[in-house]
Amino acid sequence: MARVSQAHLDARRRQILEGAARCFARNGFHATSMQDVLKEADLSAGAVYRYFSGKEELIGAIAAEVLEGLRAAFAEEAEERPLQPPDVVVGRVFTRMMDRGPVSEFGGRTGFPRLMIQVWTETLRNPELAALTREGFLRVRAAWVRIVRQYQREGLMRDDLPAEHVAQTMIALAQGFAAQQAVFGETPVENLQDGLRALMSMGGPGPVAAEGGRGSGSTP
Amino acid sequence: MARVSQAHLDARRRQILEGAARCFARNGFHATSMQDVLKEADLSAGAVYRYFSGKEELIGAIAAEVLEGLRAAFAEEAEERPLQPPDVVVGRVFTRMMDRGPVSEFGGRTGFPRLMIQVWTETLRNPELAALTREGFLRVRAAWVRIVRQYQREGLMRDDLPAEHVAQTMIALAQGFAAQQAVFGETPVENLQDGLRALMSMGGPGPVAAEGGRGSGSTP
Repeated sequence: MARVSQAHLDARRRQILEGAARCFARNGFHATSMQDVLKEADLSAGAVYRYFSGKEELIGAIAAEVLEGLRAAFAEEAEERPLQPPDVVVGRVFTRMMDRGPVSEFGGRTGFPRLMIQVWTETLRNPELAALTREGFLRVRAAWVRIVRQYQREGLMRDDLPAEHVAQTMIALAQGFAAQQAVFGETPVENLQDGLRALMSMGGPGPVAAEGGRGSGSTP
Repeated sequence: MARVSQAHLDARRRQILEGAARCFARNGFHATSMQDVLKEADLSAGAVYRYFSGKEELIGAIAAEVLEGLRAAFAEEAEERPLQPPDVVVGRVFTRMMDRGPVSEFGGRTGFPRLMIQVWTETLRNPELAALTREGFLRVRAAWVRIVRQYQREGLMRDDLPAEHVAQTMIALAQGFAAQQAVFGETPVENLQDGLRALMSMGGPGPVAAEGGRGSGSTP
């Protein structure tokens, strides 16, 4: 039997994952059979089952890749100098996730958000997937926390609020925007960036505003 | 046969919806049978099928109530004087949706977000539900647009960015935060409010910042 290189194994695994992701994004996790996946990946059952035991394992592997992609993108942004403001960071990470890298092959631009909301729904019934997703969230949050602490150190953001809460909020924003893409179809990331810029222009209650920022509506 | 009052019919319909919502929130839409719904609502098949033809119609009715609840909450906030800043508006609407009104009966505090992500996933395969959800989104956005225009008129937010984009962003934030509740469990809405306040403290590029706001990281 011929020796099979690691590169070949990796490429084969990737071929299966991308086929499965396209099926799930198109027809949904529940309406997709392993037969559909074999057909989409153009591989035999023997080839596929050597890598994945079934749909559950496939969606776990897809979720893991997406989460790792997000973590890596934000971790890279945290290293950027000069540090960019949130509207720029969010726009760049979003474009990166949609247009290139592993995730862009997971069923095209709207494929990624369509997979994402299905992964969330699956976590309600699948504790392993829930744990994996939670771990991924905490890693992405840690990367965002580093960016937020930088804003706070450089005096660009008030520093009396927990960086973890700001990071959680930034992630919520991206998650909600992605969910909108899945449910209502594609809208430009510039909409989200406009919204962030508008919020950032509001000034706010608390220490920074007291130093000369614009007051908020609650303190007329 | 006794005449049945409208109030009785409404109460019966509600009993069924709440039972179904609790089942869906607990076990997921796909793993719930109509038998489960009958049992949870403590009603006979005849009583239930007089109101709803099946699970599809139930999830549509639940989604419609949730969306109407959200629209009404934001529409009320748009009438509030003095107008409150986004962190206050989001906090109040969130608390209102979770703690009282029809939605609080849909499977408790984490029931609402658990239903919501399932509705999103169902829209991928159900065009009627997708249309209903889209219509609900546009109504909620219209209510937020009124609030945003008010901020802009009162000079609290830069007014050179489309109010629709800001409204879309605010909704994304709430949607993402709700998804987090579903997937990772309950976290206080104060986290989200902290994040909003921190963003609002950043100042931003563009007209308002040029008038003396703090610069963003992109213009050091």
